[in-house]
Parts: sequence; C-alpha cells; structure tokens
Amino acid sequence: MSIKIIGKDLPNMPWEERKGPSDGLPVWRYSANPIIGWNPTPSTARIFNSAVLPYKDGFVGVFRADSKHINPSLHVGYSKDAIHWEFEDTPISWVDEDGNPYNHEIHSYDPRLIELEGKYYIIWCVDFAGCPTIGLGYTEDFKKFVRLENPFIPFNRNGVLFPRKVNDKYLMLSRPSDSGHTPFGDIFLTESPDLKYWGKHRLVMKSGLNWWQETKIGAGPAPIETDKGWLMFYHGVITNCNGYVYSFGAALLDKDEPSKVLLRTEDYILTPQENYETNGFVPNVCFPCATLCDAKTGRIAIYYGAADTYTAIAFTTIDELYEFMLTHNKLGKGDSEAVK
Amino acid sequence: MSIKIIGKDLPNMPWEERKGPSDGLPVWRYSANPIIGWNPTPSTARIFNSAVLPYKDGFVGVFRADSKHINPSLHVGYSKDAIHWEFEDTPISWVDEDGNPYNHEIHSYDPRLIELEGKYYIIWCVDFAGCPTIGLGYTEDFKKFVRLENPFIPFNRNGVLFPRKVNDKYLMLSRPSDSGHTPFGDIFLTESPDLKYWGKHRLVMKSGLNWWQETKIGAGPAPIETDKGWLMFYHGVITNCNGYVYSFGAALLDKDEPSKVLLRTEDYILTPQENYETNGFVPNVCFPCATLCDAKTGRIAIYYGAADTYTAIAFTTIDELYEFMLTHNKLGKGDSEAVK
Amino acid sequence: MSIKIIGKDLPNMPWEERKGPSDGLPVWRYSANPIIGWNPTPSTARIFNSAVLPYKDGFVGVFRADSKHINPSLHVGYSKDAIHWEFEDTPISWVDEDGNPYNHEIHSYDPRLIELEGKYYIIWCVDFAGCPTIGLGYTEDFKKFVRLENPFIPFNRNGVLFPRKVNDKYLMLSRPSDSGHTPFGDIFLTESPDLKYWGKHRLVMKSGLNWWQETKIGAGPAPIETDKGWLMFYHGVITNCNGYVYSFGAALLDKDEPSKVLLRTEDYILTPQENYETNGFVPNVCFPCATLCDAKTGRIAIYYGAADTYTAIAFTTIDELYEFMLTHNKLGKGDSEAVK
Amino acid sequence: MSIKIIGKDLPNMPWEERKGPSDGLPVWRYSANPIIGWNPTPSTARIFNSAVLPYKDGFVGVFRADSKHINPSLHVGYSKDAIHWEFEDTPISWVDEDGNPYNHEIHSYDPRLIELEGKYYIIWCVDFAGCPTIGLGYTEDFKKFVRLENPFIPFNRNGVLFPRKVNDKYLMLSRPSDSGHTPFGDIFLTESPDLKYWGKHRLVMKSGLNWWQETKIGAGPAPIETDKGWLMFYHGVITNCNGYVYSFGAALLDKDEPSKVLLRTEDYILTPQENYETNGFVPNVCFPCATLCDAKTGRIAIYYGAADTYTAIAFTTIDELYEFMLTHNKLGKGDSEAVK
Amino acid sequence: MSIKIIGKDLPNMPWEERKGPSDGLPVWRYSANPIIGWNPTPSTARIFNSAVLPYKDGFVGVFRADSKHINPSLHVGYSKDAIHWEFEDTPISWVDEDGNPYNHEIHSYDPRLIELEGKYYIIWCVDFAGCPTIGLGYTEDFKKFVRLENPFIPFNRNGVLFPRKVNDKYLMLSRPSDSGHTPFGDIFLTESPDLKYWGKHRLVMKSGLNWWQETKIGAGPAPIETDKGWLMFYHGVITNCNGYVYSFGAALLDKDEPSKVLLRTEDYILTPQENYETNGFVPNVCFPCATLCDAKTGRIAIYYGAADTYTAIAFTTIDELYEFMLTHNKLGKGDSEAVK
Amino acid sequence: MSIKIIGKDLPNMPWEERKGPSDGLPVWRYSANPIIGWNPTPSTARIFNSAVLPYKDGFVGVFRADSKHINPSLHVGYSKDAIHWEFEDTPISWVDEDGNPYNHEIHSYDPRLIELEGKYYIIWCVDFAGCPTIGLGYTEDFKKFVRLENPFIPFNRNGVLFPRKVNDKYLMLSRPSDSGHTPFGDIFLTESPDLKYWGKHRLVMKSGLNWWQETKIGAGPAPIETDKGWLMFYHGVITNCNGYVYSFGAALLDKDEPSKVLLRTEDYILTPQENYETNGFVPNVCFPCATLCDAKTGRIAIYYGAADTYTAIAFTTIDELYEFMLTHNKLGKGDSEAVK
Repeated sequence: MSIKIIGKDLPNMPWEERKGPSDGLPVWRYSANPIIGWNPTPSTARIFNSAVLPYKDGFVGVFRADSKHINPSLHVGYSKDAIHWEFEDTPISWVDEDGNPYNHEIHSYDPRLIELEGKYYIIWCVDFAGCPTIGLGYTEDFKKFVRLENPFIPFNRNGVLFPRKVNDKYLMLSRPSDSGHTPFGDIFLTESPDLKYWGKHRLVMKSGLNWWQETKIGAGPAPIETDKGWLMFYHGVITNCNGYVYSFGAALLDKDEPSKVLLRTEDYILTPQENYETNGFVPNVCFPCATLCDAKTGRIAIYYGAADTYTAIAFTTIDELYEFMLTHNKLGKGDSEAVK
Repeated sequence: MSIKIIGKDLPNMPWEERKGPSDGLPVWRYSANPIIGWNPTPSTARIFNSAVLPYKDGFVGVFRADSKHINPSLHVGYSKDAIHWEFEDTPISWVDEDGNPYNHEIHSYDPRLIELEGKYYIIWCVDFAGCPTIGLGYTEDFKKFVRLENPFIPFNRNGVLFPRKVNDKYLMLSRPSDSGHTPFGDIFLTESPDLKYWGKHRLVMKSGLNWWQETKIGAGPAPIETDKGWLMFYHGVITNCNGYVYSFGAALLDKDEPSKVLLRTEDYILTPQENYETNGFVPNVCFPCATLCDAKTGRIAIYYGAADTYTAIAFTTIDELYEFMLTHNKLGKGDSEAVK
Repeated sequence: MSIKIIGKDLPNMPWEERKGPSDGLPVWRYSANPIIGWNPTPSTARIFNSAVLPYKDGFVGVFRADSKHINPSLHVGYSKDAIHWEFEDTPISWVDEDGNPYNHEIHSYDPRLIELEGKYYIIWCVDFAGCPTIGLGYTEDFKKFVRLENPFIPFNRNGVLFPRKVNDKYLMLSRPSDSGHTPFGDIFLTESPDLKYWGKHRLVMKSGLNWWQETKIGAGPAPIETDKGWLMFYHGVITNCNGYVYSFGAALLDKDEPSKVLLRTEDYILTPQENYETNGFVPNVCFPCATLCDAKTGRIAIYYGAADTYTAIAFTTIDELYEFMLTHNKLGKGDSEAVK
Repeated sequence: MSIKIIGKDLPNMPWEERKGPSDGLPVWRYSANPIIGWNPTPSTARIFNSAVLPYKDGFVGVFRADSKHINPSLHVGYSKDAIHWEFEDTPISWVDEDGNPYNHEIHSYDPRLIELEGKYYIIWCVDFAGCPTIGLGYTEDFKKFVRLENPFIPFNRNGVLFPRKVNDKYLMLSRPSDSGHTPFGDIFLTESPDLKYWGKHRLVMKSGLNWWQETKIGAGPAPIETDKGWLMFYHGVITNCNGYVYSFGAALLDKDEPSKVLLRTEDYILTPQENYETNGFVPNVCFPCATLCDAKTGRIAIYYGAADTYTAIAFTTIDELYEFMLTHNKLGKGDSEAVK
Repeated sequence: MSIKIIGKDLPNMPWEERKGPSDGLPVWRYSANPIIGWNPTPSTARIFNSAVLPYKDGFVGVFRADSKHINPSLHVGYSKDAIHWEFEDTPISWVDEDGNPYNHEIHSYDPRLIELEGKYYIIWCVDFAGCPTIGLGYTEDFKKFVRLENPFIPFNRNGVLFPRKVNDKYLMLSRPSDSGHTPFGDIFLTESPDLKYWGKHRLVMKSGLNWWQETKIGAGPAPIETDKGWLMFYHGVITNCNGYVYSFGAALLDKDEPSKVLLRTEDYILTPQENYETNGFVPNVCFPCATLCDAKTGRIAIYYGAADTYTAIAFTTIDELYEFMLTHNKLGKGDSEAVK
Repeated sequence: MSIKIIGKDLPNMPWEERKGPSDGLPVWRYSANPIIGWNPTPSTARIFNSAVLPYKDGFVGVFRADSKHINPSLHVGYSKDAIHWEFEDTPISWVDEDGNPYNHEIHSYDPRLIELEGKYYIIWCVDFAGCPTIGLGYTEDFKKFVRLENPFIPFNRNGVLFPRKVNDKYLMLSRPSDSGHTPFGDIFLTESPDLKYWGKHRLVMKSGLNWWQETKIGAGPAPIETDKGWLMFYHGVITNCNGYVYSFGAALLDKDEPSKVLLRTEDYILTPQENYETNGFVPNVCFPCATLCDAKTGRIAIYYGAADTYTAIAFTTIDELYEFMLTHNKLGKGDSEAVK
C-alpha cells in the first residue's frame, strides 16, 4: 500500500506538521494562512487562484491578480521560501511565435504553470472572440512570454497540461463551460502530437457523484506522477440557496491511460471553513491551482485561492493522502472506462 | 395576560439569563454559542438543523449531519446537559413495519423529534422517487427505528407533528415545496385518524406579510401547548440580491382548531446577526427545529441551525414572549380563518 | 394475446373507422375534428380539456370552459351522440356537505369525471389558498354538486380517480407540481379508505424515459379496466426552444397493484400534427381527459383538448392498442416496482 | 461582377423558376413544398434538418429522422430526382476504425454530408459523455459507416466540413454551444492535418449584427467553392417573446483564409413565412443543411428543415445571389480579420 | 344610456357590418383581413403595429415596418380608402428643432399618430442610450419630421398622447417596462405644460385583474373623446407555457381626470383566434394602435397588428361597445381613484 | 492641477488622517468603523444607506432604518459630531402640499438629503402603485415633512438632486430600474423648471466599463461643486457566482452641462474588504449616500452603508482624490457627450 512520488526532491518547500487533532481529513491548513492578503501591490486588489514552481534557488509563480478596477490578469512573482512573495505590478506581456507583441485579451485568469521539456508552460482562462477559453503559452526566463495557439474554441476553462508526454502525446485536462457562471461541468482529457493540434478527446470524470461535487468539477494543479498513477486534485462545486461552494478532492488516474479513474475521494479533502475562505469577494471558495512536492519525503503543499480574495496553503503527505483515497474511494458511473 | 405552558417541568434544561441591554426582542442568544462546531465527528462536517428531547436523566437528539462528502443524514446524539453532545458517527438505520431493513434514501435532513403517546416520532425531509417529501418514523429506544408510510407525495418539506392528538386526530404541519430551492411556501395543517391516511387539509399561514417572511415560511419546532393555544416558532425567508436570509418568528394557534392563527409576530424574534449566523456554508440562516421548556418557570430554550454550519441556542420565557406577541401582533389575510 | 375491456356495452358511442393508410400508430383522428370550436357559448371562449360519460339515453360532460376574460371554470354539457354538445353558459355551483354554498375558487380546470358507486365524481385542478391543487366533488343529477375535502395540499394537478375500489381502497393518480408551469412531474398513486383521508403513496411512473415524455408526464382519462390490467392514457411533455409540446401515450397497470407498470408505450400514440393541434391559444397541445368505450367491440373514443382551444376525438380499439403496446413496450427504471 | 461555381455540372438537380413577382430576396421557395411530410416511414415522425448529395445516377441523403418516441437519429435515403425520397426505416449503424460495432449515442441529429477525397463524410450533433458535441464519420457505400474520433469536446453543434483541403489542411466550421437551447453562438473555423487532431482555431463571424441574427448563428450546408471565395449559407436566430425564430442568410469567405469574411448579407434571404415554416413541432424554423448546385448554370437548390417537421427546398442562382450579397453587404466588427 | 363620440364625421372610413351570428363580443373582424401581408415593400418584411389618420381627401399613416434584416423602423403610407395602402420604402428621417439631421436610433417601433393643435404628433418606442423608451416628434406635412425631447428616461413603451389638452395640460399614457420582454406592466398618466417637461404622474390601471390581462397591460390607440369620458382601447397579456398572448379590451376614463377609470371590460373584446393572428412571426398577438371613427354614426374601425406580421381591422360602434362595457364592467383595486 | 471645493467651511466635520501605508487608493476608512451597529433603536434592526447634513451647531440626518419586521423606512437623527447619533424611533410622517397627512408608502429607503434654496430636500426610493420609483419632499425644520409629486413613473431608484440650479434649471440624477434586483442600470440626468415637471433627459454614464461596474451603476451622494466641475461619487456593481458586489468610484461632471463626464475613475476607490462590509444582511456592499466636506481644507467624509447592516465613514481630500482621478481616468463610450 505504499506509494511514491516520481519527481525531484524539494527540501526547501514550505512545510508545517498538523497542529491539534485531525478532523478526519488527510489535508491540513497552514497556520499562518492566508499567505497573500488584500492589496498585494499598488495596482492590484487580490491575488488568489495562482500557480507556483521551484525556480533557481527559490520559487517563481504566475499569479491571477485582480486589479483595482477588477480586471483579472497574470503577474509574475518571486519568493525565496514560497510563502513570502514579491510581485511585479504590471501584467505579463505576450509575444507571438514571430516575436510580435500579442496582447489581445481583456481577461486572463486562473493560471496553471507546468515545467515541460525545459520550458515553463502557462495555461489559463482567456478571451477568444469575447468568449472564455483556454490560452497556452510558455516562457524560458519569465521575461519573454510566447503565446501559442489556443487549444480549444470557446467555451472552456480550467485547462491543465500534464508535466510530461504520455504515450508520446501531450495531454491536457479541461472543463467545457458556458459563457457565464456555468452551472454544469465535467473533466475531459485531450491529446496532441505537437501542442498545436488537439484531438482524441476522452471523458475523465463527471460531476454529480454527491453534493459537494454536484454542480460541476474541474481539474486543479498539474497532475503529480506517482508509481501508482497520476494524482489529480480537483475542485467540486455545490449550489446552495445562497450560491456556489467550492471544495476540493483528489483522484488517481491511470498512468498510461489517464482518462481512466482508479481512485476518487468520496469526501472532499478541504472545504471552506475558515473565515478567509467563507468570507471575501466570492464567499465559500477553495480553489487549488498548484502544488509543490518533495519526492523524498512525500510532502505536498497545495496552493489554493480562498474566497477569490486570498492565497492559502494546505499540506498533506502522499502516504496519508493515498491511505485516505483507498479508504474513501467512490467512483462515478463510467469513471474507470475511457469514454468518448 | 398571564400564560402557562402545559407540560412537564424540566429543571435541568439549559438556561442563561439575558446579558446586557435588550435589543427590543424577546429572545436572546446563549453566550457560549455555537454549541456544536465544525467536524463534530470523524465522518461528518457540520451538525445544524436538528431536534432534541429530554430522555432518561439527560437528553437525546436526532441530528442533521452533513457528511464530508456533503450528504445529509440523521444521527443520534446524547447529552447530560443538552449543551455538550456525544454523537454516533453512523446514520440512523431504519426497518419497515415488518422489521426488514429499509434504507432507500440518499438524502435525509432537518429532523423534528416528537414524543407522542410514548413513542419518539421523527419527521424529516427525505427522497421519495428522487423527489423531496416528508418522511415519518418512530423509535422507542433510539436503537431500533421503524419507518412508516410517507404522509405526503412530493414536494414537501418542514413537516412537524403535534405532540398530542387534537379532536381525536393526529395533526401535522407542512410546507409544500418544489424540487429545488423553492422560492415560495406557506404552512398547511393536515389531520389523520391513524398516522397512515391524511386529509382535511387547511391553510395555517401564508408568506408575504412583510419582508422578513416575504419569500416563504415554514414551521420550526413541535408546537408548545399553552393555556392560550399552541405556540409555534416558524422560520421566514427574505430574498435579497445576494440570496436567502432565514429569520424566525412566533405564532399562537387556536387550541382546538390550530389552523386558525390567534397571534403572529410582525417582527422576527431572531435574525442572522452574529458571525456564526452570517458566515458559513449557507450564510444568513437561523433555522429553529426544537425547543426544550420548563412548565414551572416558563423557560424556553430554542435550538436552531446557524448558517447550515453550527447549532446554537436562544432563550426566552413564555411570559416575555407572549407579552411581545401581544404588542407586536400582525395577522395576514385569512390567518384567523380555516381556509381550504 | 387477446384482451377484453371489463365494462358496459356502449353501442351508441361515437365511432369512425380509420381512413387512409396507417401512420404506424394505433390511434387515428376523427375526420370531423375539432368537435368543439371557438366561442361555444356566449360567455365562453374555448372548451377543451374536458370529460364525458354516458348518461341516461345520451351523454353528459363536465367541461373546462375558459371565459372571455380567460378564467377557467367547469360547465355541464349534454349530447345525444357525444359529438354535438349543448353547454350551460354558467359554471357549476358547489355546495358543501351540509348543503351550504361553496364557491371559493377563482380557477377550476382540467376536470375528470368518474362514475363510482352510483355517483358521478369530479376531480379537477383548483385553487387552495391561492395555490393549485386537486379538488374533489360529486353529483348525482348534474344539478346539485357537493364539494368534498381536497385530497392533497398544494401543489398538485392531474388527479384521476379509479372507477372502482381496488383491494377495498379508493385510488387516485396525481402529478405533484409547482406554482407555475412546472418543468417536472411524475405520476403517483395514493389510496384512501373513505375518500377523505389519503395515504400509502406510491410512484407509478417517472418522466424522462425519452424526449416526448422528457419534461413531465400526467395521467389522462380514468383508467379503463381490462382483463390484463388497467389501461391508462397519459400525456407526456417535451420542451423545445419554442415551448412545451404535449403528446400522449398509454400504459398498462397491474390489476391489483396499479402502481406497478406492466406495459408503457415507448412511442407516443398521438402528437400535435393537425392545424387545430399545432395552432391556437397554446400551440402543440394534445391533452386527453376522457374516454368512451364499448366492451363488446373493444372500441375506444379518446376525448382530448387540442391547443387549449378545441375539443377533438381520436379512436382506437383495445386489440389494436394492446398489440401496439406489446410491440412498442419500454419501461422506465423502477416502473415495474412499487416505489415509496 | 460575374461569379462562377467551381464544381461539377449537375443537370438533373431539382429546379423551378421563380413564380410571380420577387419579394426583393434572391431566394424563392419550391412551389410543391414541403417535399417530405409527417410520418415519412413507419417508425419515424418527422424528417427535416438533413443533407443530400448526388450519388450514382441519382441522389443519396443522410436524414435527421425523429422517431415516434421523439428520438433523433440518422437515416439513409435515396432518390432519383432529389425530390421524392425513399428512406430506410432503421438508423445508420456505425463501426469503429477496427470494424467493431460502435453505437453509443442516444441522440444524433442535424447531419451534414460532404464528399471529400472520394469518401462521404458525415458530421452531425451527437452525445459525448451525455453532452452534445460534433460527431465525425464516413462511408464509401452508404452501407458501412465508420466512426472517427470526435473533433471537439462538448459543447458544440453545427459542425461543417469543407469539401476540400485548404492550404493542405482540412477545415471545419462549428458553433460552440451549451448543454441546452443555447442563447448565444458564433461560428468558428478549425483546421486539421489528419482529421484526427484539430487546432489553429479562428473566429469567422459573430451573432448580434442585427435582429434576425441577434441570438446566435451557425453554419448550414457545406461551403460552395466559387472563383470569388467560399459561399456559406448560415442560419441566424432572433428571440422574441414567444421563442426563437430561425432565418438564413449567406456569406462569402476568403478562398485561402476562410476565417475572413468578404461579404455577409445584412438581410436574411429566407425567413419563416409559409404555414409549413411557421407552424409545426418547433414553429418558425428554417434551417438549411445542404445544397445541390450545377456549375454550368449556376443554379443552387437549398435543402432546409422547416418547423422541425418538414423538409423543403428553395432555389437561387449564384449570379442573383452574388448580386444581392454585393448590394446588401454588412460586415460585423472583426468579420474581415482572422481573430484568435 | 346613449353615448356620443365627440369629434368629426368621417363618412369615408372603412366599414363592414357584422356577418353571421355574434360571438358575444362587441367587436368583429373585417372579412378581408389581413389588409397588409408579407413583404409589403421591397426592403420590408412585415408591417403591423401602426397608426393611421384621415388626411386631405384620404388617409395617412405611420407604420412599423420590420426590414428584411429585421430592424424595425417607421415608414409613411398613404391610402384613399384606409384599406389599400402605398408605403414609402425608406424610413422617416428626423430633424431636431434647429432643423439639423437627427437619426440616432437603431430601433423604432409601435408608433401612435395624434392630430393635436394642427400638428401630427408621433409617439413610438425608440432607443435612448441603447435602452427602450418613448420618442416624441411631429410633422405638419409628412415630409419634414421634427424630433422633440424624449418625455421619459428608459425603460418605457406604449406611449400614447391625448388628442387635446385636459385642464390646460398635455396628457400622455405610458407603460413602464424593462430592458427585454418585460413580464410586468401597468398604465400610467403623465401631464405636461409644454410637451417638454413632464410630471404629476398617476396610475391609471394595473395588470392582473384576470388571466387575459394577467402579465401586463398597455394603452393602444389615442383615446377617443365621448360625452361619457375617454374611450381607451388597451392590450392585455397572459403568459402560458408557450409564451405571451396579446388580446385587447376597452376602458372608459374620466373626462376631466383621466387617471380615474369609470368602466373596464372584464372580458377581452378581441383575442387571437384567426390563423393570421395565431400564426406568424410572433404567434398569438392582437395589438391595437389606431382607430378611425365617425362621430355621426358612431362607427369605429380599430387597426391592430396581428402576429407581429399583418395589419388587420376590426369594427364596432360606440353604442354596441358602450352597452357591452356597462354589462361587462369590472374595475381593479384602485382603478377609480387617482393613485400616486 | 489644483482644485477647490465651492462651498462652506465645515471645521467640525469628522476627520481622521490615514493610518498606515496607502493601498494605492485615495480613500481610507475611519478606524472606528462602523459608526452605527445592529439594533440602533428599539424598533429598528439596521441603519445603513443614509444621508447627513450640517444643521444648526451640529448635524442632522435622514436614515434608512430597516425595522425588526424588515420594512425600510426613513428616520431622523441628530448628532453633535456626525459620528455618534441619536435617532427617532418612529419614521418620518409626511403631509401633502395642502398639509393633509400623506403616508401611502410601505417601503421607503436609500434617502439622499440636499440643502437647496433654504430647504432640506429628501429624495429616496418609494412605492408608487406598488412599484419602486423616486420620491421627493422637503422639510424646513425636520418636524414637518412636505411630500411633492414623484419626479418619475416607475421603475427608478437612486435619485440625487443637485444642490443648486444649473442654467436656471433644477437637476436630478437617477438610475432607471426594474421591479426587482435589477441586473442593469445607467445614470441619467433630468432637468426641471419647477421641481414639478421634468424633462430634457440625458445619459450621464453607462455601466459595463470594466468588471467592478459591469452590472450597473448609480449616483451616490449629492454632487459636490468644485471649480473644475461637479464631483460625483457613484456605486458600481459586479455579479459574481455568489451575487452582487457593490464598490464605489468617482466622476467629475461638466460644470454647466453635467451630463458630460470629464473624468471617471477606472478603479473603484473603495470596495468591500473589511468584515463589516463583506459580512452582514447583504454581504459585499459599500453604498455611499452622503458626504460632508470642508471647503477650506478640502476634506471630505463619505458616509456609506456597509453590508446593508452598518453605517461607515471613509475619508479623502479633494486634492488627493483629484490627483487620483487624473491619473486613473477612463471614460466609457459616449461619456463625454450629451446623449439623448
């Protein structure tokens, strides 16, 4: 029943042991949450659903920052300890593949950041002809950012790239959406030979399994490779009479055919409970976008947006989480098949 | 103008005098609220809209517990002082009248608990053919639970049984609903010769009298018998631009013909104001489901769910409440008649 | 594979053989449809969803008539041939069981008429405290009409009484609704020892089996007893981008336990196709409320409202219909069980 | 100002000159419309949004047939004159690329049929994990039908393949949608090197230019190649207080970069006006899915679904249409650019 | 009980006696309806909700014409007999009070035309900052059209000017609306000393009195002066499960204080019934915008739009109508008072 | 770049310098916020969106107080320091211009208070025939309140009177609305010669410029006259998946033609961030209704309602604000023109 993260050691990642008794869930909050508060830079109001990676001797991140006119854009930030961050006050500026300026979009939000074949890929939600879809680009130095073709026509959100090719194909998770707040949503997997053309779409998981993930679900951070399969954190949404509540859970996807689900937590592993999660610009949101993990110890730090206002961290270990997934597993209809 | 509770003495019920100046309302909060917080048992996340009764030398309760996969079910709990509770971590398991296992329902919530002719009846909201309606069952020992026929076809919620027959008939309050969050709702009364067949339906009260009870109303705890009539606490809902707000008020129903309303508070008697009421899984909810009262002193403890997250207690006395009801009385159109 | 109607002979019922080739369905329209057109009486605009019975040497009916201020009420009509009708221009006037006038309702519509133990029972949709539910009453002479208690609290519509007791209980089909146009709806069965108290509710059938009955379903005419079970016509509704379309199908219910479905037509047996069905006050409605049948020949005439504007007749025989039901049978999940 | 269709001569295509005075529009209806009426085969109710092609010495088609349980599926039909059709009563049966049976879908509708590199490709709207998207397959003999990968994840409809590669890439038009009746929609263009992987998405045209195409637009028949560019008929939808109205117009797309719009009719060229268009299962729908054209004379016959009930034909000539497009041209914002 | 129209004789107005038996209503349709059909001019598709007046030796009108790109605008038309019309193919062109071109509006619809103090005033629905409100302008020769200030900020529709000052003030009826299809609406009266500044608003009548006028009501043609008061035709709307149905009724307003309602028809006086009313661009619409009347004979011709597609005429006489209004009178709550 | 308030000195107005570092915005909160909490008087629950003025040697205000039956009404309050207030527990009582009692309204809320030509004018949102519109009245002593005609028919809210005539006309800002929570809204300007008749309407600004003001905007306190133009604070609303969020910004309007916008803050200047703003009866509301300012120092205190629960104060100076407006200016389309 042991499990191992396949990846690098990251001894300088943030870490804090659980304090106090367990609440029965394998994930616990950082006691100094939130790590990013209101008005983090002169022009921005809130930094929340964002992604980080180890970089040089510290860490780098691409952050969703809502400006003080409440427009979301992507900003770069740096940190020594992945807890205290310095942000650039101006958004990322893109060039196209020919090096020409390319900055069409009004809204850019909810980035994921993936190191893949030596480049840093950014995937986020962006306007395409005035409609939300998934954007794709990369950087090698966090100074020059190259915009690639959009993988999908609208309407799509929550695109997540796998950190390596599988069966010689690039893989992307996504969550088809509508033009607004989208009261539905399932996770699909799409492959590509070249990061330009995309096809062979498969369903991964559907919403509706139980109340915490009744309305919609969407992939969170880049999947973590383990010897048992791909570990995917994902958010699930329930609609109560006062709006949406975003919790998150975990699933284990088949190593070679990741559209097959091996394990899926029947329970959420974190739900809005603390004041910085239940109270803010969008109350009751916990939205994970990134992890840092240390292969040696199996430690995982999950970065999540809280109430669309704050950035927070939660911790777990791969062993504790896997144990929980085994004992709280409930698959939805068709989860273990490849559905097209 | 004096009024008396008709019932038993309950000297060991929770009690606390009002601290500080009155806010003009006859009900005040327990200073140690909430009495039940997040993650009360290993498998459950929140215990809130629930019902309690005196039992043996202490207290017993049937509790709505939302699990960590956010599925509501009913759990038993015990307490010495009705403030500190021990809960069973597994839901109630039903048998049918022949003693065979009967556990069809996925969702079970918002129970009321009534002692009636020596049995403990449970009424709650349950699935019937995938649609919400009111379930009915009883126990004699809180170990074996016997499921009776559903009193109503869907869609119905907030069923409340009277604690004794009136005019030789069992009586039940209920609130017809729809399949979702139900933006309408009035309280009806239905009678039964045998707890199996139900008919002779009457309207009790309609929503819309003023803003706090504009959207819908629903009966709360089991009615309390007094020499002046039946005291019924009920919740009222207003819809503002950010959702529903649940407050509660009180009404006095005619002793022999309880579909007639004698008094009805124009003002709510408690509305979401404290942080544990305005902030949580469903912000701005105060939802009463049970009372404990002492006939001798006229003390009443009201148990209410707060923000669909916590359980809280408020106190009043029958004298102070009745005085308030007399001076803040406003009946709706037809409240004092028997409407069919 | 033969089947027999259990009932009286009715040689003077309307009849016309099918003209022209079959369209593959077991039901065909009367060539002189519609039999009731616009402005049938001075004060009324349209007579449509209505019910008829043999009476004396001819026929009687209780009709939904929408007045010229578009208020629906119930009117009596008489006919020698069940095709040409004379209507009373004033609505039915009720008395309560003590003989006192009882005319509370503003809206009365969609009546069914059942001869049961020598009385003529009327079941229809009526206001109860301003909300739609099912009304119940009877007459013996179509002059004095006695109002009984409402069988259900709101919200309910399409109540249909069985023409005899089954297992010594009266039975009623109904379709729980909401306060408006109700985008959902399944058929339930409820029993009563005395037509006053009702209980032991069971699901009969759910909507959603396929598109023609996707949105909701509801029982139509009083069930016809056969040696194979109860024949129930029912309407099914699909929602397209321009609104609701009402077709109808047929089901065979178990003789002794009518909440069990033995056969259910996968196809509709009649859908709006003629101009008087697709075009009118509510386009695309075919809504059956009554049948006349002749046990000897097995002939069945189905009376249905068309476009909420006209009354029309369609014909079939019990043999042709049964043959079709056997070859086009598709049960929904749980149809063959008794679900509570 | 002259224009030529690039393609084959088709002297046996249906044709009828305009009768009576012009209504100012370049398209006129066939006087014997509709060519397919109610109940065209034993099991089907309506055949409407469908596509045809010349085949051998006559014509072949793939038809949307709604069954009598109102389930849409694809049926093959043959005709000598493209007016009178013989249909198969059973739906198309698919095999996957390995020859194994492949018939997952419950709903299949609105097919387009394209001859491309010697194969007959079918593109239609299909279920993917219970959500609507675009299906793709081909046949060589209309007996064996091979199912290819879906080009898109949900939600998408109105996929249309170009009849040849452009710049060495296959091209497909589509209209991103939602899970229901979709109150928005623009036309996008996507390219593929292999009909398996798809990318380089571009906006073609947006809705909203004026009222007839305010709500949404979608490509109709396969584009017709001319020496001036690609001629694309498309439907446009307006929402009035009684629902959607589907008209159609025409656009000319750049020959080498078809995401650029050269001409777009400000006026519709056909709108629901005849009884078979304004009255039926879905009133007020004219939905074009195919054309037949004769390069020599420039004659074009447009096949369109009427009221989701009938199939009808309208005629024009490339000269008359082009003249109209030049004089009634109005581009939307960004129509003439390649937008990504 | 006699009543007299105060106004001019108009012997050449259209007239036709009732053919066949009465349907109980005081209004009957012209047997040659509709008088204006599809595609009345080269650029326009439908002419319907429009207004006419006597002019020189014939008649003039201002017409709502929806173009073939379905944009509504105002066109002038002339007729000798008020039945056969010649229309200008280009919309009215406005100048401001200084004579400068003034043509801001994209949408112009539902005009009323009033002769007042020697000028012809046009009131219609128009864009104001992209939102619908009431426009006001006048002409003296139907060649030069002068645009005045808008009487109201958005959102408003169905503005109707009185044909003379009352108590030395100009009077206007209007119906406050929302930005879309407006599921509510009552008639208000506003006065002005100068047609520039407006105030002293009063409620005239509210919707909801019964089903035909449940959703909203709005004034129709300019009020007709009689010795008993102002005769106002108005439309009423009911919402059924397939959309809106527009009927019309009549009211008599107090001569000196027209916000007081003296009589109001409980029944509609015309409702969609003929194929040209129930079937078209917007099915089930009868929308009156103008009358012609002859003071000597009391004849009244009502011009109404049918199905947003056709123009039709209905006839009555002031005597027959008044008799009907007396016998079918039902006032709403507050109708007879001046409510502010 | 200097700017001066044109008005009186007000040395005793509340004031507090900014504490701690700037968040980049020109406005800071009072450290003792909120200044009015829950249950400010025996009968009232919350006082929030309200207006204040200097009066005699202290201050006076007209307050929106929601009663404990949650009915909003207007109450008078007095203060020495404009921070600590004494409120009357009974609502304002109106007389009409003849001195007769005039108290029609059930709901009265969101008052503004303007000193104009020696009188104190109150403008607020009020029922008119059961629909919300803007009420107008005045007092000279805060004892007798005289009700004037309503300036507008429904539906309108957020009426704000200018504190002096401009070009010899009274001016009023308003925000046309609908009957409910109004998901749209722009600011208009209307003029009047006499405060009785109103016309010459102009658009001032539209919503939608960016996300914080996407859904709707509305004028806040009475405009402040400066030598550069009229300073108008206004609220802007964004709709997220959990409801509305009300922030506020500032605009500078042309001195002589105030429908022209000279400057408009791209950023909000205050958004819900503190617990008393994000948490309460309506979470996430900051709604400014009044200012106090001192011409000599340029100090401005902004009174705003927080969470529809509390009253709070924020401070700025005219210099700091103007500097910010110059550097963060973004006009919407047409803002700088007079649009009608």
